[in-house]
Amino acid sequence: MIFGIRAVIEAIEAGKEIDKLLIKKDLQGELSKTLFASISGLDIPVQRVPVEKLNRITHKNHQGVIAFTAQITYRKVEEMVPSLFEQGKTPFFVLLDGITDVRNFGAIARTAQCAAVDAIIIPSRNSVSVNADAIKTSAGALHTLPVCRENNISQTIKYLKNCGIRIAAATEKGNIDYTKGDYNGPVCLVLGAEDRGIPQEHLALCDEWVKIPILGQIESLNVSVAAGILIYEILRQRENEK
Amino acid sequence: MIFGIRAVIEAIEAGKEIDKLLIKKDLQGELSKTLFASISGLDIPVQRVPVEKLNRITHKNHQGVIAFTAQITYRKVEEMVPSLFEQGKTPFFVLLDGITDVRNFGAIARTAQCAAVDAIIIPSRNSVSVNADAIKTSAGALHTLPVCRENNISQTIKYLKNCGIRIAAATEKGNIDYTKGDYNGPVCLVLGAEDRGIPQEHLALCDEWVKIPILGQIESLNVSVAAGILIYEILRQRENEK
Repeated sequence: MIFGIRAVIEAIEAGKEIDKLLIKKDLQGELSKTLFASISGLDIPVQRVPVEKLNRITHKNHQGVIAFTAQITYRKVEEMVPSLFEQGKTPFFVLLDGITDVRNFGAIARTAQCAAVDAIIIPSRNSVSVNADAIKTSAGALHTLPVCRENNISQTIKYLKNCGIRIAAATEKGNIDYTKGDYNGPVCLVLGAEDRGIPQEHLALCDEWVKIPILGQIESLNVSVAAGILIYEILRQRENEK
Repeated sequence: MIFGIRAVIEAIEAGKEIDKLLIKKDLQGELSKTLFASISGLDIPVQRVPVEKLNRITHKNHQGVIAFTAQITYRKVEEMVPSLFEQGKTPFFVLLDGITDVRNFGAIARTAQCAAVDAIIIPSRNSVSVNADAIKTSAGALHTLPVCRENNISQTIKYLKNCGIRIAAATEKGNIDYTKGDYNGPVCLVLGAEDRGIPQEHLALCDEWVKIPILGQIESLNVSVAAGILIYEILRQRENEK
């Protein structure tokens, strides 16, 4: 955690990766202009908050600015995809589109690491990020598993499709049983938020909508369990193809 | 929660189901003899604890005895199996042999309910029980999914085998890939404790040892994720057989 306007500007200019930047709602002054200039064009999630929120985080002199530094170096999908194809791999991504429970995130990362998923993709906003709790729940998986953080998920999905990667959305609205999906080529599995699922505008871009059958009275599986079932089904089909 | 020797005796004699009974280590006196007589022959998990532990739980006059009443009515395997066969079902049990994390238990119960598992079996000792947290994490599944609590797991496994139910143990020591297991007949899937896995003496009784492949650098999956993968693989194979 870094606080104070000048300290935060210095950290950003030194290239330190910022997970989240909290700025007092009515921050003003010359130095704040320098701050806004330094973050412009960068993918740093900024939240404008009441000063009380900042005061709850630290009693020290934060000057209206607190930055949480990232625990890992986030990757970019545009860098990873060409490199995976060059290595002769069949890319396997998992896009967590709005997951907010850090324990679910950690558990999914652990499963992804076990199944040799190439990377997890998360949005910059309204999403978990890689914090200490996530790393702990992941049993350390997040130390080695690449995580891409993307500003615009619609663009990311379109980019992946242009690269020939099939986008399989896991959704209760699915029209195909998950065991009948086509996962043998390059694939990106999309899982939505615990409550609302995948946003409609992203769902519309996906190539197929797969569904895990629910026979009992409960409406849905826990998202980290659903992720495990789907990730290992993809693995099973790929192993059978070999 | 019921406390006080006489109150606990009355609850037991009234047939109230007790989840756990804490008794002060050096409890003595005539009334305590009546208590021990009333629980003799019943499957109530008893823990002898220092008086300080009881004092931490309640400030009231517990007289060295605190009972936690069960949130559900536990079932018995010996009652369930004949009834399932009579209904023409192919029994599907999940035995959680020493799971201690209540969130894992809840998540597994939720998955089991989604997959129409017939019952979960847990041991009376060194195991989670159905408490409020478990019910919450299970998304309510534990209100309807039968849970059998058994005193002697070795005997339970032997009983199930005698009934023609195949016992499939999920273990890192497994010699068969989990997708190659034989699950089309009556089956009981066994999952072990988060840290130590299935006790050796129970593992030795199981019909097959199945293993989920781990391709990455992490040693193992979270047990509730592993349960999800295995339960849905069993479902997949059974659906394919139809």
